[in-house]
Amino acid sequence: MKALIYDGKVRLDKNHPVPERKPFEALIRVMKAGICKTDLEIVKGYLDFKGILGHEFVGKVEKSPDQNLIGKRVVGEINISCGTCIYCLKGIPSHCENRLVLGIKNKNGVFSEYVSLSIENIHIIPDSITEEQAIFVEPLAAALQILEQVHIQPQENIIVLGDGNLGLLCAQVINLTGAQVLVVGKHQTKLEILKQKGIRTCLIDEISRERADVVIECTGSPAGLKEAFQIVHPQGTIVLKSTYAEQPKINLAPIVINEITIIGSRCGPFQPAIRLLENNSIDVLPLISERFPLEKGVSAIQAAKREETLKVILDIGEN
Amino acid sequence: MKALIYDGKVRLDKNHPVPERKPFEALIRVMKAGICKTDLEIVKGYLDFKGILGHEFVGKVEKSPDQNLIGKRVVGEINISCGTCIYCLKGIPSHCENRLVLGIKNKNGVFSEYVSLSIENIHIIPDSITEEQAIFVEPLAAALQILEQVHIQPQENIIVLGDGNLGLLCAQVINLTGAQVLVVGKHQTKLEILKQKGIRTCLIDEISRERADVVIECTGSPAGLKEAFQIVHPQGTIVLKSTYAEQPKINLAPIVINEITIIGSRCGPFQPAIRLLENNSIDVLPLISERFPLEKGVSAIQAAKREETLKVILDIGEN
Repeated sequence: MKALIYDGKVRLDKNHPVPERKPFEALIRVMKAGICKTDLEIVKGYLDFKGILGHEFVGKVEKSPDQNLIGKRVVGEINISCGTCIYCLKGIPSHCENRLVLGIKNKNGVFSEYVSLSIENIHIIPDSITEEQAIFVEPLAAALQILEQVHIQPQENIIVLGDGNLGLLCAQVINLTGAQVLVVGKHQTKLEILKQKGIRTCLIDEISRERADVVIECTGSPAGLKEAFQIVHPQGTIVLKSTYAEQPKINLAPIVINEITIIGSRCGPFQPAIRLLENNSIDVLPLISERFPLEKGVSAIQAAKREETLKVILDIGEN
Repeated sequence: MKALIYDGKVRLDKNHPVPERKPFEALIRVMKAGICKTDLEIVKGYLDFKGILGHEFVGKVEKSPDQNLIGKRVVGEINISCGTCIYCLKGIPSHCENRLVLGIKNKNGVFSEYVSLSIENIHIIPDSITEEQAIFVEPLAAALQILEQVHIQPQENIIVLGDGNLGLLCAQVINLTGAQVLVVGKHQTKLEILKQKGIRTCLIDEISRERADVVIECTGSPAGLKEAFQIVHPQGTIVLKSTYAEQPKINLAPIVINEITIIGSRCGPFQPAIRLLENNSIDVLPLISERFPLEKGVSAIQAAKREETLKVILDIGEN
């Protein structure tokens, strides 16, 4: 099969073996996939991953130990857990000590014609959700993880820093709580997508003395955290969504003096994400910047790196 | 009056004016005071404070608009708030935008024969608490602030990093919750105080693979935070109690990947601290290393800087 791999450089492998399905796994024919910032970090060498890239996808199940899945359009959770370690037994399998992570850690990803995945990780997509919408289930779930971790109250002021894909999804999710949301970004065209939905936005150099009870840091840069310290209220919360290889110098004294809470936030729940897409509460299609066939995967990665780009989609197989 | 001041260097001023009492303030004759790590940071130039040092004290009220206070032994909260800013109105006066802080920010401290303090800040000490115990109300309140901010559950594992005064107080407070507590320090003699109370301790280089749901960082050094990242469970909490001038380089990725919560913690509630001293739940007297008269204040500061020292007390006036 064709597969977009990273082995020190990104390249298309036209003769990659189709994955061997384990007894508890389904074999999924990939229809579409999305390129994420994490993929771009991986091709810079972050996390030391080698193999087929990609973790955001929608596909159709061809083989499965659960017959009900066969022929269904599905998405998949990316953390493959062992089921027996202390974190699995504690009910937080996304923190499994022995986990594999789709296209990120010891498990081939989805930028290929087929992927095998444990049926526990699979969610069927309702008919009303298009394949392009379905690609966003995984990043939308990551945005929803914020609401699993932090009680956002309707009377609070929330500032989202960053106008990338994750920032735009987080802003829409937080906006549903009724809280006052301000999104601070660098790109008028990206912010325009939120303005269309009535969400307040401003450019980073227009930010006034406004302060927030909760700051969602999605800039993907250490400067975002410094900005967050400036704008969060005492006893407020900063949610860290973005990871990067840099190790910034941080003045910890304001955290103690202002009693700030910093909370890291990673993967989230798929079913709420599917529900919000199903009832059209979240607009994801305006986030799609470009589409490439899998064969043009190398160019797709290049396109995704451009600052003005939002989501880049790989068209891999027909329905 | 005599006062120990810092104006670029620490010195005894034998002719400092007695503070002028404002209408809402009491004039307190200071009996005893304690030297805190923050005082030692201030005399290194941290926070740019100049004036009379000190904020941990017990004294007797000589003048007061509230007649009930006169002649009473009292302790005092250190944040003097405006009562009108958004944080005061929100009910968090310790984060007042316009606050003065006793011996720390724009307000003379307590290493002197008299101090003036708003009667709102004053708490009467019950007869059963000795003056030496009463000095610990302020740092014990700071330890109790952890329980205001974090729900410590009886089945959790808690690791306290640091065996200074604050670490020893935090360990005793957390131990009252029934949680499993381990205190990691550098000084066998200091840890011995906790062992006497049946609290588990170990030296930093003896720490095994043990991990904690909550790590209380009281080391006063950036190395403590790095250690905390190693030992906290995924989705666990790190409480930062210590401040320092250094700005360490921090790898933020583990915060996001392991979804760790970091929470800064500063001043706490006085009444619970008084209750716990009154019912002998917390042993503070073993923490006293040395006692100096105010006249020997410069030597007292030197003594407090020594690594093996715990609390240094200034004896300022008779009952």
